[in-house]
Amino acid sequence: MKISLLGGTGDIAEGLVLRWSQAGHEIYIGSRSEEKAQGIAAEYIEKLKELGIEPKIHGMENAQAAKHSEVIIISIPPEYAASTIKACADNITDQIVVTPVVSMKKEGKTFLFDPPSQGSSAAEINEVLPSTAKLVSAYHNLPATGLAKIDEELDYDVVICGDDEDAKAVVTKLTEEMKNLRVLDAGPLDVSPMIEAITPLIVSLNIRLKKHFSIKFV
Amino acid sequence: MKISLLGGTGDIAEGLVLRWSQAGHEIYIGSRSEEKAQGIAAEYIEKLKELGIEPKIHGMENAQAAKHSEVIIISIPPEYAASTIKACADNITDQIVVTPVVSMKKEGKTFLFDPPSQGSSAAEINEVLPSTAKLVSAYHNLPATGLAKIDEELDYDVVICGDDEDAKAVVTKLTEEMKNLRVLDAGPLDVSPMIEAITPLIVSLNIRLKKHFSIKFV
Repeated sequence: MKISLLGGTGDIAEGLVLRWSQAGHEIYIGSRSEEKAQGIAAEYIEKLKELGIEPKIHGMENAQAAKHSEVIIISIPPEYAASTIKACADNITDQIVVTPVVSMKKEGKTFLFDPPSQGSSAAEINEVLPSTAKLVSAYHNLPATGLAKIDEELDYDVVICGDDEDAKAVVTKLTEEMKNLRVLDAGPLDVSPMIEAITPLIVSLNIRLKKHFSIKFV
Repeated sequence: MKISLLGGTGDIAEGLVLRWSQAGHEIYIGSRSEEKAQGIAAEYIEKLKELGIEPKIHGMENAQAAKHSEVIIISIPPEYAASTIKACADNITDQIVVTPVVSMKKEGKTFLFDPPSQGSSAAEINEVLPSTAKLVSAYHNLPATGLAKIDEELDYDVVICGDDEDAKAVVTKLTEEMKNLRVLDAGPLDVSPMIEAITPLIVSLNIRLKKHFSIKFV
């Protein structure tokens, strides 16, 4: 599939680019500047070639990357996510859009869930998307370090939600191409606050206990 | 230790009473009426004697049960929890109080986190407790069925939070007497909304996927 990562760097983007390139997907790295996007794309291409993989990765402005892709991953900090999507909205028609965005605040050594007024980052982003786009909330709790090591099997659960069943099926398939992630569909997009809220909890536990936790339902 | 379970029936109460009786603790079952509490106590005593355990279980009104115990478990539906604690407040001094209370609402087949205006049931309960009491938020996601089978090992995590370190240490010890529960301390009581919000997520997953999930951090 043609998959764009808007923002393109940061946290889970590297692991997703490496693993989906390995699976043969075509990647569109988006950034505010075309030049920066091409620079990031070149870095990923080099990394993959060292791993013996010949990737299809392109760098371009966010709006162009969104336009070219069937699945759009929002890899942007929470404070800029909705405004970036709004600025790309003319290039988004019926694509699947994936939000791993979580808004947190720090209180001492503890991170707390701090959603926008809409109740979740997913709801905030959904407001600025055209109604034909299909938003799926996913990938909030993937551990970036393990994800970027493409030989490492990931024995974690990915909880997703969204209002479009077909879109969730595509995201489930793309996710389960990454061994051994299991997708659990928790229902409509209204569930997103509860999924997003797990991230600050995990971050707080990781800081207190010096761990790199992810989550599993057993 | 002397442990009271206010409400005394419902969900996780049975498993806690059975397992803590097995470990030798003295249990005070509280209810609105002394008669009802003694009836519940008698049922638990019978169950434990069948298992070859000679328990120390007493039934009495909620306020008396709270007064007699060192650790108070709130086993009361969310809509009555704070008012019940408020009515017992004269009998609560420096006890450890444990809240597994979660407020949810149902939307179709999905459960959503629906906290009181204080942001969490823990915060709502903390408002009505005397300042000398030590509130710990815990036990939101224990699967009641497995807990009540006292030979079943529970390979789950119990995430707790609270502002009193000594109280959390006591709750950790009591919890880890139940094999093989692991306690993860996520920090101050402010973390409680994020722990409470996991419950409706698990309930929704259980309904959709016909599972009896609990949670583990890996």
